[in-house]
Amino acid sequence: MADKKMVEAITSMEEDFAQWYTDVVKKAELIDYTSVKGCMVIKPAGYAIWELIQKQLDERFKETGVENVYLPMFIPESLLQKEKDHVEGFAPEVAWVTHGGLQPLQEKLCVRPTSETLFCDFYKNDIQSYRDLPKVYNQWCSVVRWEKETRPFLRSREFLWQEGHTAHATAEDAQARTIQMLNVYASFLEEVLAIPVIKGQKTEKEKFAGALATYTIEALMHDGKALQSGTSHNFGDGFAKAFDIQFTDKDNTLKHVHQTSWGMTTRLIGAIIMVHGDNSGLVLPPRVSPTQIMIVPIQQKKEGVLDKAYGLRDALKKSGLRVKVDDSDKTPGWKFAEAEMRGYPLRLEIGPKDIEAGMCVLCRRDNGEKIQVALDQVEEKAEELLETIQKEMLERARAHREEHTYEATTMEEFEQIFAEKAGFVKAMWCGEQACEDLIKEKLSVTSRCMPFEQKHLADTCVCCGKPAKKMVYWGRAY
Amino acid sequence: MADKKMVEAITSMEEDFAQWYTDVVKKAELIDYTSVKGCMVIKPAGYAIWELIQKQLDERFKETGVENVYLPMFIPESLLQKEKDHVEGFAPEVAWVTHGGLQPLQEKLCVRPTSETLFCDFYKNDIQSYRDLPKVYNQWCSVVRWEKETRPFLRSREFLWQEGHTAHATAEDAQARTIQMLNVYASFLEEVLAIPVIKGQKTEKEKFAGALATYTIEALMHDGKALQSGTSHNFGDGFAKAFDIQFTDKDNTLKHVHQTSWGMTTRLIGAIIMVHGDNSGLVLPPRVSPTQIMIVPIQQKKEGVLDKAYGLRDALKKSGLRVKVDDSDKTPGWKFAEAEMRGYPLRLEIGPKDIEAGMCVLCRRDNGEKIQVALDQVEEKAEELLETIQKEMLERARAHREEHTYEATTMEEFEQIFAEKAGFVKAMWCGEQACEDLIKEKLSVTSRCMPFEQKHLADTCVCCGKPAKKMVYWGRAY
Repeated sequence: MADKKMVEAITSMEEDFAQWYTDVVKKAELIDYTSVKGCMVIKPAGYAIWELIQKQLDERFKETGVENVYLPMFIPESLLQKEKDHVEGFAPEVAWVTHGGLQPLQEKLCVRPTSETLFCDFYKNDIQSYRDLPKVYNQWCSVVRWEKETRPFLRSREFLWQEGHTAHATAEDAQARTIQMLNVYASFLEEVLAIPVIKGQKTEKEKFAGALATYTIEALMHDGKALQSGTSHNFGDGFAKAFDIQFTDKDNTLKHVHQTSWGMTTRLIGAIIMVHGDNSGLVLPPRVSPTQIMIVPIQQKKEGVLDKAYGLRDALKKSGLRVKVDDSDKTPGWKFAEAEMRGYPLRLEIGPKDIEAGMCVLCRRDNGEKIQVALDQVEEKAEELLETIQKEMLERARAHREEHTYEATTMEEFEQIFAEKAGFVKAMWCGEQACEDLIKEKLSVTSRCMPFEQKHLADTCVCCGKPAKKMVYWGRAY
Repeated sequence: MADKKMVEAITSMEEDFAQWYTDVVKKAELIDYTSVKGCMVIKPAGYAIWELIQKQLDERFKETGVENVYLPMFIPESLLQKEKDHVEGFAPEVAWVTHGGLQPLQEKLCVRPTSETLFCDFYKNDIQSYRDLPKVYNQWCSVVRWEKETRPFLRSREFLWQEGHTAHATAEDAQARTIQMLNVYASFLEEVLAIPVIKGQKTEKEKFAGALATYTIEALMHDGKALQSGTSHNFGDGFAKAFDIQFTDKDNTLKHVHQTSWGMTTRLIGAIIMVHGDNSGLVLPPRVSPTQIMIVPIQQKKEGVLDKAYGLRDALKKSGLRVKVDDSDKTPGWKFAEAEMRGYPLRLEIGPKDIEAGMCVLCRRDNGEKIQVALDQVEEKAEELLETIQKEMLERARAHREEHTYEATTMEEFEQIFAEKAGFVKAMWCGEQACEDLIKEKLSVTSRCMPFEQKHLADTCVCCGKPAKKMVYWGRAY
C-alpha cells in the first residue's frame, strides 16, 4: 500500500509550489499532522535529517569552544518582562501555563519562545569575575511560538532548534562572536546543506526584539522566495543592564557583560526541500542524507542477487557510507520511485546480468545520470560521486540564485521586477523605515538584509529618492 | 575564586547523605538552581555527561532497530483522557497551558508528562496493515510533572529523558520488545555507568498508569536507598482499544496492535553520583566522563613543562581518549582538588623532574592509587587503567549492593533490618496489595520489584503469613 501512495504523482512545482512542498513533505514521510493544531510529528525520515544536521553543526560549534547546557522550558512572567523590547516582541505569541497539577499557579509561566531571559537570570549568578568570561553556551531544545498560520518545518507552533547565548567582557568580543557564529552558519549551509547564502545585517525594523544588531543568512528557494535561515544577534549590554549582570574586571571595577545569541531551526529541513527538490520529490545533499546509497536488487529472487547486494552494502558501509538494501517484495520500479521520492543521492542497481559482467549501475538522484561501475571499484567510485553530487548541488543552487537576483535603481523597475519575476532584488535604501513600510505595503516585499558585500548601484533610495545609505537585498519571504 | 569554593570541604556522606549529594551536585558544577521553582539548569559539566549517556544509549537502541522521531510537547485534554487509568495516574501532576498568544484556548493543553497518548493518536493513522508493523520509535525530549518536592536530577518538574513507544502485531512481539529494552537498559547501566541492577517486574500497585505489566531495573545507592533507574511497560492492547489502533493482518481481519513503552531519564546522573561518589566529590565511570584524563602540569612555568603536557594531551587524544590540560594559574593542589571534585577517572601529573626521568604519574580517582609510567608507554597504560577502573567500579558497586542486601522471613526480622540497616530486603509476599500498603505505612518501605531471579525463602508472606507467591525486593526509595 505504501508504495502505491508513494508513486502517485505529486503536484508539479511549476503548477503550485506550495502544494508541491506539502506533497513532498508528506510523501517523503518527513512529517505527519497531529491533533495538536499547528504542531507536527517529525517522522523517522525527517528526524534522521535533523540528527545529521545536529551532529555536524554541534561539532562545528564545539570547535569554536561552545559548551552545551539545558535550561528550563518555562519562563516566569516577571522574568520575561524585564527587557522592554524583548517582551513586546514575544508576549503576543507565547503559550501560557496557568495551572500546575490541580492548582492555579501564583505566577503564570510562558513556554519559552527563546531563552534570553533565562540565560540572563542564570548568568547573573554564574558570572562574578572576568575569569568567568567568556561564557559560550548553547542548548538544543524545542521552543513554542503561537503562530496563526503554520506550515511544516517553516512555521509551526513548536519547533526544534539550537540557541547559543554568550556573555563577554567587552563589546568587541561580543561583536566578534556574533560574526563568528554567523560565519559558522554560512559555511555549514554551503558545505553541508549545499545551500549558498547571503550574509548581512538586518535593518532596525527587522532586527530581533531586544538586540543591538541582528545578522542573518538569507537563502533563495526554488520558487524565488527568500528564507531567513539563521540569525546571530549582538545584544550589547542591554540585557545585562536589565538583568544586572556585572563582573569585576581586571582593573577591579564592576562592568556589565556584553551578550550575543544565535539560532538555527528545523526550518533548515524546509530549506533543503525547497532549494534542491524536484518533481520526483526530495533531493538530499549527501552529507545530510540518512541513506546515501539505496541498493535496489533486480530479479532479487534469482540465486546470488540478494547476497551480492548485502555484500556490496557491507563493503560500502566499511568505507563509512550510509547504505541500505531495499529487499522488500515491491517491484524494482516501485523501489526506484520510492528512492527518488525520499531523495537518496545514489541508487545502486544490481541484477544477475550485472553480476555476470562484474558490473553494477549507480544512478544519481540530482541529475538522473547512470554510471556503469566495475564491482571492484564501487566503493571508490561511490565516494567520488557523492563528493561530486555535494559540490554540484551547491553550484546549481548558486547558479539558480544568481539567475534570480536582480538590480533595481528606480521604483518603477523595482515594482516591475516583483510583478514579473521572483527572486532577490538588490536596491539602494535611504535607511528610513518609512520606505520599508511602503514597499511592504505595496508589494509584500521585505528587506532581507544589508549584505556585507555592498555595491553602489545608485546615489538615491529606490523608494523615496533621498540619498542612499545602503544596498539592501529585498524579497518575498517565507 | 572558583577554586576556593571548590576545595571548601563538602559535607561528609556519613554525616548527612542528602546534604553531601546537594554539595556534590553544586560544587562539581553539574547544575544550578533557577527562578523557576523545581526546575534546574544543567550546566556544561552535567550536560556533557548526559550527552555521553545519550550517545551510547542511542547507539544501543539503533542496533535493535529503533528509529527516532519527535512528537509535540502538548497534549489536548481530550486526548489525555482517552485511557482511563492513564489519565488518573497523570492528571494530578501535569502543567496546563490555557492561553496561546493573547487568547484563551478552546481546549486546554497539558505539557507532556509522557507521550503514550500522542503516540497512539499518531499510530492510529500511521498503521494500516501488518506490513506497517512493528513500529519501534523513540524520542529524546523533556517532560514535565508538577512535583511538590524536588531534588536535582532525582525529581524535578522538568527533566530530560528518552521515551520509546512501539506497536506490534502480536502480544508475544510486544512482550519480547518489553523485555529486550529492559535488557538494553540493564546492560547499559552495568557496562557504561558501572551500576549493577536488579531486573524484575513491578507489582500491580507500583506499575505504570495504563500498563498491563511494568518491568524495572533497580539500583542500590551508597546510602542503601533504592533508585528505580529505568522502566519498560507492556500495554497489551489496552491503549490500542482506547484509541482504536487497528491493522489488517495477513489473514485479512482487523486486529488491535499491542504496545510497549520504555524510558530512562537524567535521574541516571543522580544514580552515578550516589553509587560512585565519595567525600572528595564525584567519581565518574570512564565511559561517561567528559574528561577521562586531566593533565596537571607541576611547576608549569619552567621551560618545557607545558609543552610536554600539551604533547601528552595530543598523543592521548589520538588514542581516542578525552583529555584536557589544566593550564590555569591555580596551584597544583587546587587543581588536584578540582579534578577530584569533578570526578575525572585519571589525573596525570607531569613536572620537570618527571620529564628528566622520562616518567609521569597517573593517579586513579576511584581509589587514589598513583602509578609511575614511562612517557613512551602512557597511551597504552592509560587505556588499560581506564578499562580497569571501569571494571573495578562495577565490581565495587556490586559488592556494596551484596553487602547491603538482606533476607527476612518474618515481619519481626523485616522490621528489625529496616530499623538498623539500609539496603534491599528480599522477602516473600502473598501478592495482596494490603500487605504492600501496610509495609509502606509502617516502614516507609515499598516493593521495588519481583525479580526475574526468584528464590524460595519461605512458604509464607513476610507480612500476613498467608501462602507466598513471589519473592520481592523491598527498600526505601528515591
